[in-house]
Amino acid sequence: MIAQFATLLTQEQVEQVHQASLEILENVGLLVRNEKARKRLAQHGCQVDSKVDIVKFPRQVVEHFRAAYPPTFTFHGRDPQYDRTIPDDGPLIMTGSSAPNIIDPITGHERRARSDDMARIAHLFNELPALDIFSVSVLCDDAPAGHYSLSRYYPALKNTLKPVRGNVSDVDEAKKVIKLGYLVAGSEAAYRERPLITHHYCAVVSPLTLDFDSTELLMFLTEEGFPGYASIVPNAGLTSPLTLMGPLAQGNAEFLAWATLKQMTRSGATLVYSALPTVADMRTGAYAPGGIENGILAMGFAQLARYYNVPSASYVGLTNAKVVDAQAGFEKSLSPMASMLAGSDLLNMAGLIDAIMTFDFTMLTIDNEIAEMMKRVKRGLEFSQENMALDLITEAGPAGMFIDTPHTLERMKSCAVLPEIADRNPRRIWAESGKLDAQAKAMQRVRDILTRDNPAVFSPDVDARIRAEFEGLVSGNSTPPPGWTPPEPTRTRDRKNRRIRR
Amino acid sequence: MIAQFATLLTQEQVEQVHQASLEILENVGLLVRNEKARKRLAQHGCQVDSKVDIVKFPRQVVEHFRAAYPPTFTFHGRDPQYDRTIPDDGPLIMTGSSAPNIIDPITGHERRARSDDMARIAHLFNELPALDIFSVSVLCDDAPAGHYSLSRYYPALKNTLKPVRGNVSDVDEAKKVIKLGYLVAGSEAAYRERPLITHHYCAVVSPLTLDFDSTELLMFLTEEGFPGYASIVPNAGLTSPLTLMGPLAQGNAEFLAWATLKQMTRSGATLVYSALPTVADMRTGAYAPGGIENGILAMGFAQLARYYNVPSASYVGLTNAKVVDAQAGFEKSLSPMASMLAGSDLLNMAGLIDAIMTFDFTMLTIDNEIAEMMKRVKRGLEFSQENMALDLITEAGPAGMFIDTPHTLERMKSCAVLPEIADRNPRRIWAESGKLDAQAKAMQRVRDILTRDNPAVFSPDVDARIRAEFEGLVSGNSTPPPGWTPPEPTRTRDRKNRRIRR
Repeated sequence: MIAQFATLLTQEQVEQVHQASLEILENVGLLVRNEKARKRLAQHGCQVDSKVDIVKFPRQVVEHFRAAYPPTFTFHGRDPQYDRTIPDDGPLIMTGSSAPNIIDPITGHERRARSDDMARIAHLFNELPALDIFSVSVLCDDAPAGHYSLSRYYPALKNTLKPVRGNVSDVDEAKKVIKLGYLVAGSEAAYRERPLITHHYCAVVSPLTLDFDSTELLMFLTEEGFPGYASIVPNAGLTSPLTLMGPLAQGNAEFLAWATLKQMTRSGATLVYSALPTVADMRTGAYAPGGIENGILAMGFAQLARYYNVPSASYVGLTNAKVVDAQAGFEKSLSPMASMLAGSDLLNMAGLIDAIMTFDFTMLTIDNEIAEMMKRVKRGLEFSQENMALDLITEAGPAGMFIDTPHTLERMKSCAVLPEIADRNPRRIWAESGKLDAQAKAMQRVRDILTRDNPAVFSPDVDARIRAEFEGLVSGNSTPPPGWTPPEPTRTRDRKNRRIRR
Repeated sequence: MIAQFATLLTQEQVEQVHQASLEILENVGLLVRNEKARKRLAQHGCQVDSKVDIVKFPRQVVEHFRAAYPPTFTFHGRDPQYDRTIPDDGPLIMTGSSAPNIIDPITGHERRARSDDMARIAHLFNELPALDIFSVSVLCDDAPAGHYSLSRYYPALKNTLKPVRGNVSDVDEAKKVIKLGYLVAGSEAAYRERPLITHHYCAVVSPLTLDFDSTELLMFLTEEGFPGYASIVPNAGLTSPLTLMGPLAQGNAEFLAWATLKQMTRSGATLVYSALPTVADMRTGAYAPGGIENGILAMGFAQLARYYNVPSASYVGLTNAKVVDAQAGFEKSLSPMASMLAGSDLLNMAGLIDAIMTFDFTMLTIDNEIAEMMKRVKRGLEFSQENMALDLITEAGPAGMFIDTPHTLERMKSCAVLPEIADRNPRRIWAESGKLDAQAKAMQRVRDILTRDNPAVFSPDVDARIRAEFEGLVSGNSTPPPGWTPPEPTRTRDRKNRRIRR
């Protein structure tokens, strides 16, 4: 248990940021490219300058709709045991989203991602226990015409029982994906009861712009009652002032803008305060999500979310590394730990490298281990008189030993994270075992999982129902990558033993 | 600025840990192997059972001496500009200590460390700006007879202007090292005014044992007024209960034991609450300082140190990795970030791999970059009305740009960490530049530094004075590793340009 979160701002400073954001909304306003949104904002008290499509938000309007923000958000999985609600179940670990590229697991080279990659990614994700939410991780270069989003969501939904979250480009694509959801759930009613897909839309483009399609999506999905939220993305130096407080105040105004429009659309609609703030590397203008400033800003946004009593999400652990090396290791760890200890409820951190351009199977597997460690921190010191074990300390006495007590035996598997990637052998044994680095060990685990059947796939009935509806749909099967042999048939479904053997 | 630290315990729970530790000291006591210590403890109210050398500490004795703990600790460097006082100057970053082995920078293979390695390590350390304190990092396999400690401290002191901290085996060795200190400082008086060496002794062996030599050292150095402190080292499952609260309560009792003896020796003597807690990997019994539990316990000890109003230090970022890979990256980052955000003032984290058995030059260089990021978090969001930059946000307006403003130009080099190891190039440029991973980039930097003269070395006078005193002393020179060529002479001392070129 975390008794108290780390904060970088005093409560008074948080209040001042809130006031600054209100001032931005009231005096600068937002460029709103969507006419329906402009009308809706005007109807509820905003001032629209229709010559330039700038909408100003009076502070009483923002404050009025803020009162309706709900304090929780639930993600539904195909299997309800994987449903997760934040903040209580946090920190949740989510994969990264929508990378155009992938590191091919056979060649080790970068290439465009495809729908069979998506199936394997979802399969691997489903088997990694510390990962909670599948954010549809790559684009699919092999999508048939008209199936741009279906080629992404179908392999994803087919291969994981855990909640799925993702983007679509516009309302038409959203409708196809939701229809797919109905077929997976069995009926529209069943889907509406437990929506298996959480939508995400980058409604706000920094600085201070509500874009057309994503704002249309926000309104459509909210009207329909489907769950979703937007992320704000200020990039200091390019789309925001080159300080940390500038993007914080501006980004907070951007959050308040979309959240206000959402509450105008449906009062009490659920939301997540989600942020992907960065500071550009001003030597080259490079996008630098791996920078520690991303984590510092995430800490600030988490504190603001707490001020508004809404669940928070941060895009952290987003390395600029091109390979799974020490840079990937430290960039994947510093900002997630900082943001979690500041109270982020949901971390979008798993699987991507190269400034969120590229998915890597070994990275996802290592991120799962990092996620296990993060969650161990959240469990904390487990304070209790029993855990202080004064009796045992007394019994062992000075210079005593603890290894052979029943107390120790009982806790051997539960006290500490027992990593599968992080190597703890002496150097000699490590050398005799092939001198594998973390990436090589991760690849062994990837291969172990991806050469086995996926227990999560749809039943043949469900699959037939879906394929009948969408002609020419990609296969969505998580077949082993070319050249990787499945294990002997006798072992294929022997899941219990497999876990012990490892 | 960190406005509020993360905590894993409520204030009431901290108080209960304190009470549990007092109970351990009063009812279980410590095995005290040093007779002088037993006498001193008895003289001040402890109860000694001389048959078994167990000493029990009544709580009023512990509480009485606790009132004398000073709230700050200062490390002195050869150059006073590098003096550092905690907590105000924290978080300080210290190197790891006393590794027997090193990864040879030429062959890449592990071997025993030598005094010429120590010289190069200190030289490299001196040039890495985010590293504050040099904990004498390796043992020296080439030490001449009678020069065991001199062979370590002389190359260290010779090659860095920053504070040096280290262990010695006993009082005789301490006296030699202090004599070296007098010669470096110019006189005993000058040394006593600004002691260039901070001593460290593992006085307490877990569980609950005050050892002979290190306790003798604690008393001798404290009597003489030389700065130093002990670290407590509970290892859950082996030398402490297999929970996190057990080692916390027991370790806290061990801290109170040495701190009490220190205050009995000299009231008001400075101290640091330093801890190296671990949980054994119970699959093999392996020592697992890379485990996240090390960071969680560090958070608990930092909170206890704050309760006692004393500066704290944590051994964190101690990877079990055998190579500088993604495992090294995440183990080097998770626990340091956790402990810093919990208020640790000093992090012993730089340069070692393989469960603190082995020094690696590239790891030290990468740790410097991690340290820069940690310190950026401590700077925080830099709240001010000016930094919120509402004027600038207003001026740019919705959909505006920030890149070409004077405000941005002024902050290009100061807002964010500009990493030298972490690669931010697009993949194509990275590939054209040789596809270097973080370790390869770090090795370039190591080579760049170690093939240049070290501006920190002693003057010839000081060196002559020292070498006249200690016959047969190792060279202590940081010559480039065999095969590494120094740069052209004209560039050697051109430090200003070098920095621009990088």
